[in-house]
Amino acid sequence: MDPWLECMDFGVAMTKEAGKMIRDALQREISVREKSSPVDLVTETDQKVEELIISSIREKFPTHSFIGEESVAAGAPSALTDGPTWIIDPIDGTTNFVHRFPFISVSIGFTVNRQIEFGIVFSCLENKMYTARRGRGAFCNGAPITVSGQQDITKSLILTEMGFKKDSEHFRAMMANMESILSIPVHGIRAPGSAAVNMCLVACGAADAYYHIGIHCWDMAGGAAILTEAGGVVMDITGGPFDLMSRRLIAASSQGIAESIAKKIQPFCCGRDDTES
Amino acid sequence: MDPWLECMDFGVAMTKEAGKMIRDALQREISVREKSSPVDLVTETDQKVEELIISSIREKFPTHSFIGEESVAAGAPSALTDGPTWIIDPIDGTTNFVHRFPFISVSIGFTVNRQIEFGIVFSCLENKMYTARRGRGAFCNGAPITVSGQQDITKSLILTEMGFKKDSEHFRAMMANMESILSIPVHGIRAPGSAAVNMCLVACGAADAYYHIGIHCWDMAGGAAILTEAGGVVMDITGGPFDLMSRRLIAASSQGIAESIAKKIQPFCCGRDDTES
Repeated sequence: MDPWLECMDFGVAMTKEAGKMIRDALQREISVREKSSPVDLVTETDQKVEELIISSIREKFPTHSFIGEESVAAGAPSALTDGPTWIIDPIDGTTNFVHRFPFISVSIGFTVNRQIEFGIVFSCLENKMYTARRGRGAFCNGAPITVSGQQDITKSLILTEMGFKKDSEHFRAMMANMESILSIPVHGIRAPGSAAVNMCLVACGAADAYYHIGIHCWDMAGGAAILTEAGGVVMDITGGPFDLMSRRLIAASSQGIAESIAKKIQPFCCGRDDTES
Repeated sequence: MDPWLECMDFGVAMTKEAGKMIRDALQREISVREKSSPVDLVTETDQKVEELIISSIREKFPTHSFIGEESVAAGAPSALTDGPTWIIDPIDGTTNFVHRFPFISVSIGFTVNRQIEFGIVFSCLENKMYTARRGRGAFCNGAPITVSGQQDITKSLILTEMGFKKDSEHFRAMMANMESILSIPVHGIRAPGSAAVNMCLVACGAADAYYHIGIHCWDMAGGAAILTEAGGVVMDITGGPFDLMSRRLIAASSQGIAESIAKKIQPFCCGRDDTES
């Protein structure tokens, strides 16, 4: 028996519920308030969705731990332990949500002994449910998905995230990295605005890589399982091993593409999600 | 009687056919060959779709003129005349098509006396048919659409196009413009990779503006009709009046947003689509 399959099935059901809440909210007026800057928006829905997911899972699996974007924002710890842990982004693509831009997802990753056991990403406006259980492949709406397998960076389509950063040094590094990647040259850069969806787009072969400095563990945990089960690669932006709490990611269709990107990108300091410095 | 309604109905039917051809092609192996650089791809499907559209329309309306992306690439003139003219992009988002990235559209704009009478954009993987007849509003799959109406640039989501340019001066200007827009700051920049879809995303309120230097008339003609009928604004990047053949565009949800962008963008020379210099 697969010890975590019951958890995964329950997670998929909760994610569907959450997606419905998000779609319903988009039908209503959206009450937006700002966290710390105009690009850092949070909505009531974000908090409600996380509360729904965590309270439902906690009732069913009372010994499990949680790392949720909104809980952490409210002061909860985000250290990863060895116990079964649900890592949750209730709305990945909050800015997209505010604008009703069509890439908005619910993302769940589940770790045991700090290893990701399964991932669930529901792109709820596209109505695409991506799922992956470790060792059992990746799926979109039940159909198997695989990466493009592209090895040649000059034939690749790259995803990244563009935002204003108050720290001008970080902002300059972000722009320089984008320029460096474009100049390889690649086929193009796309910026859909949802980290979890980006990883799924690479997982199903619609893009060849995604890189991001400043990402959080709740943006990556679900997508990392889906991408690796689809045949892709996750890597630190320095070319070293992927670290879920590092806030840095290269997600690619192949080792070759990931390494090509690692060579072109200059890292900058963005802290960690856990308590380590 | 609306003199051009029959043309529009026929155009919508042809666009649906074209969308079906594109979806079918994506199911098959894609034979890609390069035009002039890795970022300038063309596929057999592109040419076949344009041939289908133009030959069908020519049979029905033998006196009409055509400006089609692939015909122009093959040497046909692209000067806009006063006669009824169909301006066609068979696959807007060719790079997306090659990668199966989900924003791929068929775009048709129809001009008489150099004025756009109607526009049709079919985002064929999303299955969204955008249409607009001058003076009669804009629609997505038959339902009326309107722009966000956002006036405040600091609360806006902006779309643009990012690609490598062999001319390093142009490339530097493109990057500088992007940096300038991000630094306002805005909520974010998204790059979906299809000009026609970008204009429709602004038309339905999912983004607040789109700007692009180096765009072509076949990328803009359909979307311009849809955006203006949805309550939006098209403008030259200098802040002057929109010129379909100028290869420059600001498409926005309001005059205020369009002007804010015009103030921040440095134009660079990219030629014209017609014979004027």
